[in-house]
Amino acid sequence: LLVNSERLRADLQTLGEIGWTPGVGLGRTTFSDAHLAARAWFLETARAAGLQTLIDSAANHSAVLPSGEPGARTLLLGSHLDSVAQGGRYDGALGVLCALEVLRSVKDAGLELPMTIEAIDFTDEEGTLVGTLGSWALTGALTPDTLAAPRGGREHLLAELDRMGLTEAGLLAAGRDPATLAGFVELHIEQGPVLERESVDLGIVTAIRGNASFDVTFTGEARHAGTTPMDLRRDAGLGAASLVLAVRHTVMREFPGCVANVGELHLRPGAYNVVPGQARMRLECRSLDDAELDRLADALAAQARSSAAEWDLEVEVAPVGRWTPVATDGEVRAALRRACEALGLSSMELPSGAGHDAQVLVSVTRSGMVFVPSHHGISHGPAEHTTWNDCVNGANVLLRATVDLARSL
Amino acid sequence: LLVNSERLRADLQTLGEIGWTPGVGLGRTTFSDAHLAARAWFLETARAAGLQTLIDSAANHSAVLPSGEPGARTLLLGSHLDSVAQGGRYDGALGVLCALEVLRSVKDAGLELPMTIEAIDFTDEEGTLVGTLGSWALTGALTPDTLAAPRGGREHLLAELDRMGLTEAGLLAAGRDPATLAGFVELHIEQGPVLERESVDLGIVTAIRGNASFDVTFTGEARHAGTTPMDLRRDAGLGAASLVLAVRHTVMREFPGCVANVGELHLRPGAYNVVPGQARMRLECRSLDDAELDRLADALAAQARSSAAEWDLEVEVAPVGRWTPVATDGEVRAALRRACEALGLSSMELPSGAGHDAQVLVSVTRSGMVFVPSHHGISHGPAEHTTWNDCVNGANVLLRATVDLARSL
Repeated sequence: LLVNSERLRADLQTLGEIGWTPGVGLGRTTFSDAHLAARAWFLETARAAGLQTLIDSAANHSAVLPSGEPGARTLLLGSHLDSVAQGGRYDGALGVLCALEVLRSVKDAGLELPMTIEAIDFTDEEGTLVGTLGSWALTGALTPDTLAAPRGGREHLLAELDRMGLTEAGLLAAGRDPATLAGFVELHIEQGPVLERESVDLGIVTAIRGNASFDVTFTGEARHAGTTPMDLRRDAGLGAASLVLAVRHTVMREFPGCVANVGELHLRPGAYNVVPGQARMRLECRSLDDAELDRLADALAAQARSSAAEWDLEVEVAPVGRWTPVATDGEVRAALRRACEALGLSSMELPSGAGHDAQVLVSVTRSGMVFVPSHHGISHGPAEHTTWNDCVNGANVLLRATVDLARSL
Repeated sequence: LLVNSERLRADLQTLGEIGWTPGVGLGRTTFSDAHLAARAWFLETARAAGLQTLIDSAANHSAVLPSGEPGARTLLLGSHLDSVAQGGRYDGALGVLCALEVLRSVKDAGLELPMTIEAIDFTDEEGTLVGTLGSWALTGALTPDTLAAPRGGREHLLAELDRMGLTEAGLLAAGRDPATLAGFVELHIEQGPVLERESVDLGIVTAIRGNASFDVTFTGEARHAGTTPMDLRRDAGLGAASLVLAVRHTVMREFPGCVANVGELHLRPGAYNVVPGQARMRLECRSLDDAELDRLADALAAQARSSAAEWDLEVEVAPVGRWTPVATDGEVRAALRRACEALGLSSMELPSGAGHDAQVLVSVTRSGMVFVPSHHGISHGPAEHTTWNDCVNGANVLLRATVDLARSL
């Protein structure tokens, strides 16, 4: 039992053109014209294959192959079709396409499974609006608090929901009864360099790193840079610069295996001739262990305070988000391993450094992930690439594991 | 001979309301409604005092008290009525008001001077469009090259000229014959902490610091911050942070008396979870000596290259602008000193760290500046303040020096 690789390849090419600008990348942010076009194409392609389709009140889009058995539970497969602003063709999209191809292959083979299988495209995984919005809604984990302070801003969220004919009440009511779910398997690109470096065909994800993010604001005094002597300044940029270097040193020396990042830094008011009175930074850190994540976050906050003290500044460290590290399901991992072995493909277990819809699903159903290699570890950019052979390997492992799990979970 | 301090105070209060928003500051960027209203008020007030008025083809606005002597040269006094976006009530405005008050006081006293005296409000000193645009135009130093790449963008400049009924040809033709000019005296707030700290009434400016500015861009590789190990990153933020600290250390250790500033810093793409692939910085440095300014700029560029090498990044250091340091005129300084002595006011010589219209005028006529103290050294913000007593002292020194220079230059 193998997927129809020519059909999958054609889909990947067609979908990869929707929102693609040469030299810039893929622009399929949530509810953009390109994103809506990609979702419409997905449902149309599913219907053309004789599959049922479904859109829930969180705008999650699904293709469904129902089981003939009454009361059958559903095995979810899938990922997301939205992208970051200048993304690549593979992140999320490959997982949705492979899920769709699994449904078509099972249908074409005339297999009668004891579970309904559903290929789902989750809404807003990348966080144009909220981040993993669709998977939160589907698991019932979405709260009014989350919608009150969304990543992309409250006004933007409300305007976009209105424009799409969605409501907050609908988002909060989209939760499925966990008893109807049997599991979730997400195929995704690794987004890191490990599989390529180790020359391994596929990765079986053991756990997903937890993550804590912060907005750090140093405040000094904005002064004329031509008239204020160097030793009379309270330059917020110096605190920020010290912290950028300290974050790296702290992680490298005291938290091996963890990562941290200063992803954004702004100085205000932002002119050549004004000593910065304010520096605003976006900081995050990740660990596979919950207690270690707390220790790491505490250590970085302490660094921020000592950088502020060093340069006579005030500092505020405001928590933005926190994800608890989670383990994937052992049954799902075992099915993926059996599928690799049966197909003669090499595999290794590895953690996921990135967050995924599976991280949310794990709280309500047996969930797991399979990674295909990312060339040079690149993701979230136009150079994102997975070889065609690796894509087909991933699809075939997903197909075999799906059949296995549909009969065993 | 003293100014009418009540009249000056009323003017300062009236003008300070034009464009003022409580809690925000003064919004009189070039050609904004508030700026145009301030300029209209200035000409109207001059006419009400029986002075002539003049608008040249660079939109410089002047009040004129003509000399009775045929062929008399002109002694220019003044500064600018435009402000930065969230500025204060004193920067530029106080110099224009004191110049106007000098003309009225001379006229009221019935003094017949052998020179025409002119109170001028130069266009766009702060650089909403170009920076010292009016003084460049008046000295004939404006070039098509400067207008081709203005600080506020070429399209914005053209649109604003068009809206105001101005033309590039008019700007380029606004130069005055230097033979018609006798000198220029600018009263301005210090914008630094020295006079207040030293408890000195007035500052006599010896020189204006030269300034070299640069855009520095570090380029590494944007990568997923959750999946890319710390030791496999090429994080542009690390190069930028190293340079921020190195700039300060280099100036403090090797260039005492100079200043430098990193006023802006952006990381791209700018997300919590993306290792920055690019860091863009706005850097400037200042010195009173031309050769030292070059050495300082070279040393900072070398620091940028070594920061890049340290973190395996590329770096580009692009020059943005350069101002040669200039000395003020000895005759003007002497007249200001005599005026302070005659009035029993303390004074000290000091350099100007900030740029001014006088920096441009110095190339065509004997030019000098007098500083009044700035409370806490604050400028370019709503907290900008000079005590009323200091304002009156400055106006009286300007009046006395004007009469002195009109008879001696």
